[in-house]
Amino acid sequence: MVTKRVDLRSDTVTKPTEAMRAAMATAEVDDDVLGADPTAARLESGVAKIMGKEAGLFVASGTMGNLISVLVHCDIRGSEVILGDNCHIHIYENGGISTIGGVHPRPVKNNDDGTMDIGLIEAAIRDPRGEIVYPTTRLICLENSHANTGGRCLSAEYTDKVGELAKKHGLKLHIDGARIFNASVALGVPVNRLVQAADSVSVCLSKGLGAPVGSVIVGSKSFISKARRLRKTLGGGMRQLGFICAAAFVALKENVAKLEGDHKKAKVLAEGLNQIKGLRVNVAAVETNIVKNHFYQLDYHAYILHVTVFHQIFFDIVEGSKITAEKLYKKLEEHGVLVMLEGPLRSVSVSNIRV
Amino acid sequence: MVTKRVDLRSDTVTKPTEAMRAAMATAEVDDDVLGADPTAARLESGVAKIMGKEAGLFVASGTMGNLISVLVHCDIRGSEVILGDNCHIHIYENGGISTIGGVHPRPVKNNDDGTMDIGLIEAAIRDPRGEIVYPTTRLICLENSHANTGGRCLSAEYTDKVGELAKKHGLKLHIDGARIFNASVALGVPVNRLVQAADSVSVCLSKGLGAPVGSVIVGSKSFISKARRLRKTLGGGMRQLGFICAAAFVALKENVAKLEGDHKKAKVLAEGLNQIKGLRVNVAAVETNIVKNHFYQLDYHAYILHVTVFHQIFFDIVEGSKITAEKLYKKLEEHGVLVMLEGPLRSVSVSNIRV
Amino acid sequence: MVTKRVDLRSDTVTKPTEAMRAAMATAEVDDDVLGADPTAARLESGVAKIMGKEAGLFVASGTMGNLISVLVHCDIRGSEVILGDNCHIHIYENGGISTIGGVHPRPVKNNDDGTMDIGLIEAAIRDPRGEIVYPTTRLICLENSHANTGGRCLSAEYTDKVGELAKKHGLKLHIDGARIFNASVALGVPVNRLVQAADSVSVCLSKGLGAPVGSVIVGSKSFISKARRLRKTLGGGMRQLGFICAAAFVALKENVAKLEGDHKKAKVLAEGLNQIKGLRVNVAAVETNIVKNHFYQLDYHAYILHVTVFHQIFFDIVEGSKITAEKLYKKLEEHGVLVMLEGPLRSVSVSNIRV
Amino acid sequence: MVTKRVDLRSDTVTKPTEAMRAAMATAEVDDDVLGADPTAARLESGVAKIMGKEAGLFVASGTMGNLISVLVHCDIRGSEVILGDNCHIHIYENGGISTIGGVHPRPVKNNDDGTMDIGLIEAAIRDPRGEIVYPTTRLICLENSHANTGGRCLSAEYTDKVGELAKKHGLKLHIDGARIFNASVALGVPVNRLVQAADSVSVCLSKGLGAPVGSVIVGSKSFISKARRLRKTLGGGMRQLGFICAAAFVALKENVAKLEGDHKKAKVLAEGLNQIKGLRVNVAAVETNIVKNHFYQLDYHAYILHVTVFHQIFFDIVEGSKITAEKLYKKLEEHGVLVMLEGPLRSVSVSNIRV
Repeated sequence: MVTKRVDLRSDTVTKPTEAMRAAMATAEVDDDVLGADPTAARLESGVAKIMGKEAGLFVASGTMGNLISVLVHCDIRGSEVILGDNCHIHIYENGGISTIGGVHPRPVKNNDDGTMDIGLIEAAIRDPRGEIVYPTTRLICLENSHANTGGRCLSAEYTDKVGELAKKHGLKLHIDGARIFNASVALGVPVNRLVQAADSVSVCLSKGLGAPVGSVIVGSKSFISKARRLRKTLGGGMRQLGFICAAAFVALKENVAKLEGDHKKAKVLAEGLNQIKGLRVNVAAVETNIVKNHFYQLDYHAYILHVTVFHQIFFDIVEGSKITAEKLYKKLEEHGVLVMLEGPLRSVSVSNIRV
Repeated sequence: MVTKRVDLRSDTVTKPTEAMRAAMATAEVDDDVLGADPTAARLESGVAKIMGKEAGLFVASGTMGNLISVLVHCDIRGSEVILGDNCHIHIYENGGISTIGGVHPRPVKNNDDGTMDIGLIEAAIRDPRGEIVYPTTRLICLENSHANTGGRCLSAEYTDKVGELAKKHGLKLHIDGARIFNASVALGVPVNRLVQAADSVSVCLSKGLGAPVGSVIVGSKSFISKARRLRKTLGGGMRQLGFICAAAFVALKENVAKLEGDHKKAKVLAEGLNQIKGLRVNVAAVETNIVKNHFYQLDYHAYILHVTVFHQIFFDIVEGSKITAEKLYKKLEEHGVLVMLEGPLRSVSVSNIRV
Repeated sequence: MVTKRVDLRSDTVTKPTEAMRAAMATAEVDDDVLGADPTAARLESGVAKIMGKEAGLFVASGTMGNLISVLVHCDIRGSEVILGDNCHIHIYENGGISTIGGVHPRPVKNNDDGTMDIGLIEAAIRDPRGEIVYPTTRLICLENSHANTGGRCLSAEYTDKVGELAKKHGLKLHIDGARIFNASVALGVPVNRLVQAADSVSVCLSKGLGAPVGSVIVGSKSFISKARRLRKTLGGGMRQLGFICAAAFVALKENVAKLEGDHKKAKVLAEGLNQIKGLRVNVAAVETNIVKNHFYQLDYHAYILHVTVFHQIFFDIVEGSKITAEKLYKKLEEHGVLVMLEGPLRSVSVSNIRV
Repeated sequence: MVTKRVDLRSDTVTKPTEAMRAAMATAEVDDDVLGADPTAARLESGVAKIMGKEAGLFVASGTMGNLISVLVHCDIRGSEVILGDNCHIHIYENGGISTIGGVHPRPVKNNDDGTMDIGLIEAAIRDPRGEIVYPTTRLICLENSHANTGGRCLSAEYTDKVGELAKKHGLKLHIDGARIFNASVALGVPVNRLVQAADSVSVCLSKGLGAPVGSVIVGSKSFISKARRLRKTLGGGMRQLGFICAAAFVALKENVAKLEGDHKKAKVLAEGLNQIKGLRVNVAAVETNIVKNHFYQLDYHAYILHVTVFHQIFFDIVEGSKITAEKLYKKLEEHGVLVMLEGPLRSVSVSNIRV
């Protein structure tokens, strides 16, 4: 009989702490569409300061943060964005930048470490004065840490190089920083240094940091002003927003310090899984809280199993093994461990909240 | 010296009650993107039941509710929507149905009572098998109560007729019910009867009902299933959504009963304003909580003053009067009454929270 | 027995003259996508010169000309265009500016003479620094002559006033000049004077002027440069374009002089029709080659009959008359006169090529 | 001194033959928007028959043909298309499927022979009932012959396999057949067999076949009916279209037989270029009329020189060679050979018309 349920589906299944609930219960609030909710304003300027940018804007999700950022930078019809072929924006956000925003994506190959070759990025750039058959490149997107390549971290130096390239060609640089604090902790580099070259960053508060809802995007005052208008267009303008922001503020203050522990647990779990006959995990590549051996989109022939310790760990079931993803899924469920089937064919993902 | 600040800017400046805060502090929550947050699910099915529809979906705002509804009904490229030339969707939602959704609006003249002539609606319908130069009409939108024509209520009979017309031509009917409870109370007709003919309704909980954040859209299961996906595309999928929904549930339970009182106060204020020399209000047209003498878009030559008792009242400054909108605005501010400049030229809007 | 077929369906059913065929047979051509087709270049600069603008671009149709013009002026996401509620762009172009271009239309009431009240236009303008719920007005569109209000002509003075308004608010002015030469001839005002205030004009060569295919849009060099790129995006870039342009050049040279005769014939036909018992035509309103008594969209209850002498004449069948649109349609067909059923319900349109 | 100019810029610089001019001069024409131009109708049904499909539609360019085809198959908001990362639609068509059509591209790696691995295609397919964060795959695109990978031909067997995959997942298959006749001639397989598995094909008549203007798309009657409406939306509806179609018909009848000779010339030129010190051409890979050693987008570090014999040949300048692209360009120009600079950095393209 199962006595304790362990929900390993995703790192977003966190439950808010008592401190978060208390902050919500006493939050000072006002109409954030007409003017500014004071708690929201405090959170927005707080995150902006931490990230070293002029201003911030609360948004309902990481997807909204990325969507708004890409659309603000690419506000002219005929824009193209260069981004990793395995990044979250391209794979997991409904293609919204095209289907809602009319922006053309130009995916460039993601390496195993989440980078794209600088040369490949430069080759993909299209000059606005160039061929009449080319859209105009206006933006490069990076993701740090890069979830789909296993939570690998982009160094400040790499990011700077991409930033220089962007400047040279008159482009903007956006960083999907859904897990930028994980990268900062793992690299031992302040988070504002990591995003120094970026024109905008989307920072998620409801993943590793455990806030119930929301992300903050940061950038210049002019960028945030346009973003605020676009957020309204999308219907993302919320009235007494302070409640949500109060909880998010607690997450920001209390949980960054816990990320290092998460990374250690991820390593331990990866090592343990790797010792199980029939499973295989690339332990060395566990930099933060995700393990993944290779590109998702190339994995069509293999079973993939995701395990998350507050975040995600991916491991393979060795082909020819007697274990199948489906069997493991059922077995774990019987023991009260909730996991999730995922991937193009028959793969499995499990995750674990911080315990 | 001002001792009590009265914020008359809009009906959205409400502060949540203690009961709402308490509900938030104890709300049961879960990941609403991966599965379903239990409190959100309860609110969604609750509102759906009240409205007499199969299913519901929480959205961040009335704008998001309308945007998603229009886009789901008009999910095929080349769609046209028939809507009032003075309705909220056409005037106050950033043109999002076109700029984000690529839907072509075909505005039809709104009468002073918020209706559109049935004959004009029918004349505007374009047959999909028709002229190759026509977009295909797929949707008719109504707004009840109709804010821009003074909070006037559409009767169940009128709505039914539009619904019959829609059915006859294979179209869908959406109702922007941002203030549908006001209409229900004023008409003395159950809210589910008022929207019986509609395929979808957007119900706002953060205006007269005073919830901090959010609306619920309702419709068939198939409609809501598509709406859920589109909400994710827009970035409106939120994780531990239950907090917000818990407060909204309180608003729904406690505040519908207060709307009748709001309507009475609106009438009193309208009468009072009308007695002030230099001001003019169409008192007879105050059906709910808004007074407005004529169409906003025709008013370019006149001063308009908006006053809201928990909602909005509009009145004119008689031309040639010594009172100007600017002077009144300053005078009121000196007395601690916050109002808002609005309109194409120099008009003013003031509103009042429930006291 | 019918010995001579008279095709009265539309003014676009013209057959090219021998001179046009000869011009095509000997046209000098080159690749107009890689570089410039010499005949196309000659036509483009020729029309630009006639219209008093810097540059021109050949496009496949009037619809493409208007679509490209609107999209170039409204190249930033969130743009709104002010245009007549009865104009060709709004009614007869598939809603392409929204469904393909994501531009939000803000229709303003067309008067019986094709104008919109200046005050109404100004009231509809939305300031980019204005309300966060407003799209940004970037363009005003006029149509001269205005087909749907009966080929009525906009004076140079009226157009200038709209141009001044546009300038005052930082907007652009586009003129749909599908029949701008008709307006010029009828008003006795040079065509470049008529469009002096416009930033762009779409000039059709395949309606009254009888070219087999095409329109030319004119404007500043910068406008045309952007238009050329957008034409390629739409797939409107054509290779050895000179053939078509050669015929269009003949149309431009030879047929402007014939327009005055067309207008006279339209008047004669209108008078004749008006004398037939059961028919009614507003003869006084025939300024060019179209007669139409009132707005199409208001006519849902009436039969409309279109008759064209090289262009279009609309007349009503008096209600209660024994003549019906269907009967008249069949009767005319028996006599070899091809007409066309049109309109929302059961109306009829007939037209006549120049004979 | 140069006595004979040789224009090697592209295969689209063809001059129409006398037979084409004669066909134009005598073409029977009518209004193709109101009804059907007889010559256009003949060409459309003729091409449809050759391709083994129900119906056809003339369009102004290959770009318009692909744009319309993709948009008709992906007419529901939220659609994704799987296509080669090096194909014409993705690289050379302004990103129109996204920027105009809101379709999300999911590029899959093109192999050196123009194919994509079947397994990779299947892995990229997203199920409409799948994850709420996925767009819905609705279309797969192939290109035959595949220009950017050197004019390599896709076999009927490969195409059939992709077609089976598409059917299995409820997807459509579109073939960009800009040079499908080249593939047919090179493979010795009838053109209708090559596209048997396709739901739509875009066939260009103005490249190797030498028509002045235009392509024809073919597919089911229902597909063509939707395509005709969308062509109007884009402004691609043309009036007396028969002139252009008459020339295109001649191209179709007379020039397919010349393609084999073109392919031989391409081989000869490739061999000759390869013998020049400092140049390098992959002669073995010349299957039709294009040579290209590797993927364009990977070539950012190398000089590329394009040479076309009626079509295109690409060869590399060996790194370290004394020849530079710029020098060669000037030298050729001095000898009356027009070539074209191309590529991301400083590459060169030259082409030659059939002589």
